[in-house]
Amino acid sequence: MDERLRKQLAFSLEIDREKNVFRQTHLSGRGRRENDAEHAWHMAVMAWLLREHANEEVDIARVMLMCLIHDIVEIDAGDTYAYDAEGLKTQKAREDAAKERIFSLLPEDQKKELTALFDEFEECRTADARYAHAMDNLQPLILNDSNDGGDWIEHGVSAQAVRKRQEKTLQGSEALYEVAMGIIREHVRKGHLTE
Amino acid sequence: MDERLRKQLAFSLEIDREKNVFRQTHLSGRGRRENDAEHAWHMAVMAWLLREHANEEVDIARVMLMCLIHDIVEIDAGDTYAYDAEGLKTQKAREDAAKERIFSLLPEDQKKELTALFDEFEECRTADARYAHAMDNLQPLILNDSNDGGDWIEHGVSAQAVRKRQEKTLQGSEALYEVAMGIIREHVRKGHLTE
Repeated sequence: MDERLRKQLAFSLEIDREKNVFRQTHLSGRGRRENDAEHAWHMAVMAWLLREHANEEVDIARVMLMCLIHDIVEIDAGDTYAYDAEGLKTQKAREDAAKERIFSLLPEDQKKELTALFDEFEECRTADARYAHAMDNLQPLILNDSNDGGDWIEHGVSAQAVRKRQEKTLQGSEALYEVAMGIIREHVRKGHLTE
Repeated sequence: MDERLRKQLAFSLEIDREKNVFRQTHLSGRGRRENDAEHAWHMAVMAWLLREHANEEVDIARVMLMCLIHDIVEIDAGDTYAYDAEGLKTQKAREDAAKERIFSLLPEDQKKELTALFDEFEECRTADARYAHAMDNLQPLILNDSNDGGDWIEHGVSAQAVRKRQEKTLQGSEALYEVAMGIIREHVRKGHLTE
């Protein structure tokens, strides 16, 4: 087997470990916690389904790939909960080291391409990245909505914090931002989120 | 919210259940059994990474989406193990009913589009479908290889059955078929697969 293919397969095996990184979000039906690989799969399908609602024209293949790889660094760095202020302080350093190690398993050109796509998502300055971020926010929101806001109640999350996180959804899709705001209003009304 | 968006979100929530459909394959590191959503995520990333090895030119966005949705019917129909002869007899009827129910949650145009893509994968008569099938075969093979053939040993699978399944890999990618044959030879040599 040539060296290029060997590297591609080594990376393919390595990313299997993303299935062992668990998030704070629970599956619908008050299920177990969701892992990063499932979350990425769900985002990518939703990105395709909902693409007509993006604010700007997007390249859906790039968006889907961005969704699929956006959490790969968490294999080493672990998941940082969106409302964990302490964890968020060290998140970038942990994720930068992981990014270098994991993408270096690939042939150089694919390392560069996936690292650039990963960074584009993080920087959130392109139409594709803004829409991918809308998926990253909307996907756990619909699960948590289906579970009567259980994840917010467990962590005592405020409506303000959830609205703040959804600012990126607005940049990606006004229509989906409206959906998110409606969901948040409903859970404030029910007492699942504190004002 | 308009009816179209409401349907898209209902489908998005419904497919969350695919994360509860467990396969016979175990995660690397002799981990737990893999679920369909993780398997689909892994296939889609591998499809992008390995696309230069496809026998024919493929539309990678279509292939990735095909990989992501190819097991959605198993939400109702359950996973049928590739080497379960009895289960394979009723698989089509179970999956057809599931396909109709699940894709009917979508707006009509998206129901048609995803049903057609699902059928294209099943029929395996296009370049995109042949390459997607190569991923469906190669992905569990590399996990099982990393686990010293544990899944084959558990089910007493023969080398002949594994080679037969990999015939579709040959149609999608000669280079990846060679990889698969090399892995099978190695596990025959180690006594993990019976000749």
